[in-house]
Amino acid sequence: MVTQKSDRRTIVVVGGVAGGASAATRARRMNEEAEIILLEKDGDVSFANCGLPYHIGGEIADRSALVVASSEFLRRRFRLDVRTHHEVIAVDRPNKRVEVRRGDSKETLWIQYDKLILAPGASPIHPPIPGANASNVLTLRNLDDMDRIKRIVDAESTSKTVVVGAGYVGLEMVEQLVLRDIETSLVELQPQVLPLLDSEMAEPIAAESVAKGVSLFLGRGVTEIVTDENNRATAVVLGDRTKIDTDLVILGIGVRPNTKLAADAGLKIGETGGIVTNDYMQTSDPDIYAAGDACEYVYGPTGKRMRVALAGPANRAGRLAGQHAATDESDPMPAVQGTSVVRVFGCSAASTGLTRSFAKRLGMAANSVTIIAKNHAGYFPGAEMMTLKLVYDPKTEKILGAQAVGGEGVDKRIDIIATAMHFGGTVRQLTGIDLCYAPPFGSAKDPVHMAAFAACNQLDGISDFYEFDADLTGKQVVDVRTSGEIEKAPLTGVKDAIHIPVDELRDRMSELDESAETVVACAVGVRGHIATRILHQRGFSVKNLSGGATVYNRAKKKS
Amino acid sequence: MVTQKSDRRTIVVVGGVAGGASAATRARRMNEEAEIILLEKDGDVSFANCGLPYHIGGEIADRSALVVASSEFLRRRFRLDVRTHHEVIAVDRPNKRVEVRRGDSKETLWIQYDKLILAPGASPIHPPIPGANASNVLTLRNLDDMDRIKRIVDAESTSKTVVVGAGYVGLEMVEQLVLRDIETSLVELQPQVLPLLDSEMAEPIAAESVAKGVSLFLGRGVTEIVTDENNRATAVVLGDRTKIDTDLVILGIGVRPNTKLAADAGLKIGETGGIVTNDYMQTSDPDIYAAGDACEYVYGPTGKRMRVALAGPANRAGRLAGQHAATDESDPMPAVQGTSVVRVFGCSAASTGLTRSFAKRLGMAANSVTIIAKNHAGYFPGAEMMTLKLVYDPKTEKILGAQAVGGEGVDKRIDIIATAMHFGGTVRQLTGIDLCYAPPFGSAKDPVHMAAFAACNQLDGISDFYEFDADLTGKQVVDVRTSGEIEKAPLTGVKDAIHIPVDELRDRMSELDESAETVVACAVGVRGHIATRILHQRGFSVKNLSGGATVYNRAKKKS
Repeated sequence: MVTQKSDRRTIVVVGGVAGGASAATRARRMNEEAEIILLEKDGDVSFANCGLPYHIGGEIADRSALVVASSEFLRRRFRLDVRTHHEVIAVDRPNKRVEVRRGDSKETLWIQYDKLILAPGASPIHPPIPGANASNVLTLRNLDDMDRIKRIVDAESTSKTVVVGAGYVGLEMVEQLVLRDIETSLVELQPQVLPLLDSEMAEPIAAESVAKGVSLFLGRGVTEIVTDENNRATAVVLGDRTKIDTDLVILGIGVRPNTKLAADAGLKIGETGGIVTNDYMQTSDPDIYAAGDACEYVYGPTGKRMRVALAGPANRAGRLAGQHAATDESDPMPAVQGTSVVRVFGCSAASTGLTRSFAKRLGMAANSVTIIAKNHAGYFPGAEMMTLKLVYDPKTEKILGAQAVGGEGVDKRIDIIATAMHFGGTVRQLTGIDLCYAPPFGSAKDPVHMAAFAACNQLDGISDFYEFDADLTGKQVVDVRTSGEIEKAPLTGVKDAIHIPVDELRDRMSELDESAETVVACAVGVRGHIATRILHQRGFSVKNLSGGATVYNRAKKKS
Repeated sequence: MVTQKSDRRTIVVVGGVAGGASAATRARRMNEEAEIILLEKDGDVSFANCGLPYHIGGEIADRSALVVASSEFLRRRFRLDVRTHHEVIAVDRPNKRVEVRRGDSKETLWIQYDKLILAPGASPIHPPIPGANASNVLTLRNLDDMDRIKRIVDAESTSKTVVVGAGYVGLEMVEQLVLRDIETSLVELQPQVLPLLDSEMAEPIAAESVAKGVSLFLGRGVTEIVTDENNRATAVVLGDRTKIDTDLVILGIGVRPNTKLAADAGLKIGETGGIVTNDYMQTSDPDIYAAGDACEYVYGPTGKRMRVALAGPANRAGRLAGQHAATDESDPMPAVQGTSVVRVFGCSAASTGLTRSFAKRLGMAANSVTIIAKNHAGYFPGAEMMTLKLVYDPKTEKILGAQAVGGEGVDKRIDIIATAMHFGGTVRQLTGIDLCYAPPFGSAKDPVHMAAFAACNQLDGISDFYEFDADLTGKQVVDVRTSGEIEKAPLTGVKDAIHIPVDELRDRMSELDESAETVVACAVGVRGHIATRILHQRGFSVKNLSGGATVYNRAKKKS
């Protein structure tokens, strides 16, 4: 039971989008008598941040659909005192008040609070390069930004754009620009798209973008933006001197948390640059809360606090902060896994927790297995392939993270695994989850089961996997595919693979060197597993190429 | 580490479909030297049981797609000694051998085993009513059954069919018959379709069927099948004397586990009629295993053993039995939640664990909350509604089950909740799961979160829910919808609701009787929650109508 408070406390919320709006409305539901003031420095509150690219591309035709709850609605339904164009410029903690500037006016006013909730979000990064301030070099964070970009995209004179940064927003913009028949180039400093994923898991997204006509420039940063006499960008220049003409530059290279207000007020800022909070979203001052992109959360896979700039945690943390600010009690904020998804044309990528490369950078022991499977029964029409990679701790067997890339259903598998991680689940426990199955929806053995089975086979010494980020030099490579398959997709850079179709392996064992370190390859890893088992039981030291030739060749591809 | 056995033991598997085929192939992967004999009484092994209706309807055009692994394939790849048309008629446990009849021959042969795996499945029930043995009264369990039904459906003279039983197979058949432009009647003894779901959760499936032209006869059984002089059914007669003309009768009224072989051999049969097994799928004779529809599993929500005739557990249990039979060790079989899904035209229903009505029948304390939400961000095109009901134990807060009905994404939500149940999760833990979100895939607050929030609001005394299976007589009903909404969909049977739109409630409080037991209603429960909070804080004893007028009216609908 939660104590029911209906006192006249004043709750001031700074920032009116995801975290702030969730906080203010939950505070009202918990406390009818409180005075709740929502201060937003821009002109709109509670808009659909994540929907902005889709209005530019026209997939969301109606702009007003992006306004989830207008100021007027919040006033009417929740009796919130909503004040847009009100920027909080200082927090006076001893006197429990904030200093506020209205619009462009020079005068400021002071507003008292009993409880203060900071949800200032984050701001897009503008790189310090020549031309970055040109009028058509834009970032996308709010409705005004969206309108600005859309006006340029809508202009008849606009035929080509450059998107800088191949993260979520960058890729969503690329997709929507191509839908608008705009010639689109995508530039990314890292040698892969979606730099937060393992590179071979991101490769299908790159391939899909190229297939849809996007010009991809990986491993190169923008060093200069060329402008004309009207301060309009006309081209971008990359580190390798490539010059790309353009009518519009969209920057999606990341965000910086808006922590100045908190830092100036002496609130503790964490190692990853976000406002430090406790389990109830209280900052180092217990009357001040924080939620959203400016604060840190406990990150499940490491147990450490870090920034996770995603809408889901922002909304949940805001709701929780709002309740606690209104009633002095709430459940604790659970750890977040950093679960996310992006659609890029017909291919989607989703992930949760740690990637293998991130785990290795952190010095953590991390095994991974990769499987390729269909989203539902293969015999039912419309099945789509997905690649699913499971990262786990070989000692504790705990799931550390997962990534999926492919067609329909990648979100479902990542959500299932994120749920298992929420409960501290192991790969062994994951083998036994009971998922719903009918041919249009899944398989009796779901891709999640297949990945978990593979991990347990690895843990139990039944079938080990060869990681494709190593190369195969010096190994006895046995390719168990048919010759037709091998001809179509040979193992990249492997000249001396021995070809024995899996069904002939038992009878042609004498062609192999039993003393050699052996790696078995097939298309996706299924036949490889069978061949690995056959050779293992004949005494070979043998591993199965993880994800087969398909994933290996992705890993070796220079995009 | 699993001990690696490669001994020449003989493993005999009885039944070659889901459980049996999984067992035999896993046994081979674990043990290259074993002799593995797969005995199947029918003509096909490893076919896609769950795909049969879709070939009849033409959605799976190619019949051969339904053969997942042919006998020839299993011989070649796994060196299995596959023998179709071999029926095991007795187990001689003292001598560790089975007696086998080949085809229609009278002679039998004996096959020795070291380990025996029973995966005989279940058989469709034929009711003991006149005419049930007519040549066109058919059940659907294997490829022969499918071919028989399809021949009749394909015949030009066939224009109408009756499906008896509105469970999964019955509904899938109905859908596929309508796709074939066959006039279809569906008869169900229970007063609802999908009798394993709570009735109001099944109602949208009934409505969708009727909308697609199906004639629905609920609450009535078939008492007689009228046949002509050629022993062909021409009509069915229901308990209320309704007579439905037909060219074909398909029976989908349930299955009976094939336990005779096990029972005759003196193996223990459980309370729910399945073969008793331990955690390693060993029967009361440790050299004999069982898997699939004929055996019992530990059922998660109750912790008791019961039959769960679903493909997922069958495949996993078979795999595990195969490993244990081949190596004498394996992980234990985890509890199953009975997770399932069915698509019926544009509407799907999925469930896991206990329904509220089943929990009540078991005498368990069970609360439930019902929410209606969209499968992904409402502002993104193509969002579809789903109703999600969460059943939980009010003392332990543990999730007992969930049901979802609606458009896209019901399978995902049920899989997420089934995963949480696998880990013994509570509704409170469910509020914090970190799911992937982008507008095409979900919402920052997913339907699963919304249901979990509602449950915690109920647990914490923040907002209680009024269950729609009670009626509203004697309550002060406050309908907080707009008058336009109320006109279109009034609360069924409620004459004296007080109409106050939620936004006017704070100012019109004087119109209400503060001492009356109050129930608030809106369309789906969201505004009702806000109104409940307002009234609660003014001292009212108030509940929110669970799922709003939408679900209430479904519950009151006589289909």
